[in-house]
Amino acid sequence: MSAFEFWHDFASPYSYIAAMRLDRLARDGGLRAEWRPFLLGPIFRKRRADGQPFQDVGPAERRYRTRDLERLCARHAIPWRLPDRYPPASLLAARLAEHGRVAGWSQAFSVAVYGLAFAGNTRIDDPAVLAPVLAGLGADAGAALAACAEPPAKAALASAVAEAEGRGIFGAPSFVVDGELFWGSDRLDHALDWAQGNRPV
Amino acid sequence: MSAFEFWHDFASPYSYIAAMRLDRLARDGGLRAEWRPFLLGPIFRKRRADGQPFQDVGPAERRYRTRDLERLCARHAIPWRLPDRYPPASLLAARLAEHGRVAGWSQAFSVAVYGLAFAGNTRIDDPAVLAPVLAGLGADAGAALAACAEPPAKAALASAVAEAEGRGIFGAPSFVVDGELFWGSDRLDHALDWAQGNRPV
Repeated sequence: MSAFEFWHDFASPYSYIAAMRLDRLARDGGLRAEWRPFLLGPIFRKRRADGQPFQDVGPAERRYRTRDLERLCARHAIPWRLPDRYPPASLLAARLAEHGRVAGWSQAFSVAVYGLAFAGNTRIDDPAVLAPVLAGLGADAGAALAACAEPPAKAALASAVAEAEGRGIFGAPSFVVDGELFWGSDRLDHALDWAQGNRPV
Repeated sequence: MSAFEFWHDFASPYSYIAAMRLDRLARDGGLRAEWRPFLLGPIFRKRRADGQPFQDVGPAERRYRTRDLERLCARHAIPWRLPDRYPPASLLAARLAEHGRVAGWSQAFSVAVYGLAFAGNTRIDDPAVLAPVLAGLGADAGAALAACAEPPAKAALASAVAEAEGRGIFGAPSFVVDGELFWGSDRLDHALDWAQGNRPV
């Protein structure tokens, strides 16, 4: 099995779907992915046609997405609740998830954060919400939160964004397998096939 | 089996993929879809964030799409050649396809046009290219091409665009089953499931 990178942004509900599916696969022993938190905002800001740091879709597409997410989650038996505050502010959680890669709690933390954001209708930009999550994973919540206010943690996340751009990433979730890029939760199965050597072209 | 509407734009390579898959399903006796040609341009022009009549994606997404289409077509065993002139100018073909709905040759014509555009690297805005396609289907090519230069055929296509908007359509391909909208070639299987009564939510 090739190395499987999962690039995700906590603001993205389609990242949530991919995260839940990948977490389930990992628990079933099927796949060990490398979870790579990043931010789409800085990448969106560089777009030529629309430099807003988010996806400013029109009313028809917004209505569609709401329904599409509901349907997709039902299809994959994933709990779903569109958060009142959408998209969630993902900066602090992303810094923490990047920080936790060294200590090894990034994936478990990310799963918990996604659940709060897209099943629990809970703000994920509040240290008071994230501290007990960290503590529950055995991390030193105070130290981790303090570290994420300092330049090195900010630089680490900025570096992750640059690394994502270097891989050609422009959206979330994205999967990278042996340099091959897949974008969107609906390409997860294709990326998994690729990792198992099923490469039609 | 519920009524299955397939809304497509000849400029869209993902519409091509859906068209080839639906045509194969129809020939296998699995599904009779109603093929509905329309134009995305007039819908894109109304977008707030980007009023261009096409999708002005950045270089990273453009590179990705090229590879994604190649991979998807290989996965589905569909021939593929990115046309030199991309996106193809779809207006004339769309008018003809709409015109052919009454006579019953719209679907066969559309399949042929998609093959020319995305496997044959052939311009589809040239009457000299489309006339033999029409003739091969038993249509009066001269009469059909003449009709498509007249106000009623123009109005019929404009009306199809308005009908698409009325269904909440904002991209192509789209599928509508009992008022339920699905967008994108990667939702085709979900739409087919829906048509067969598998409706998780």
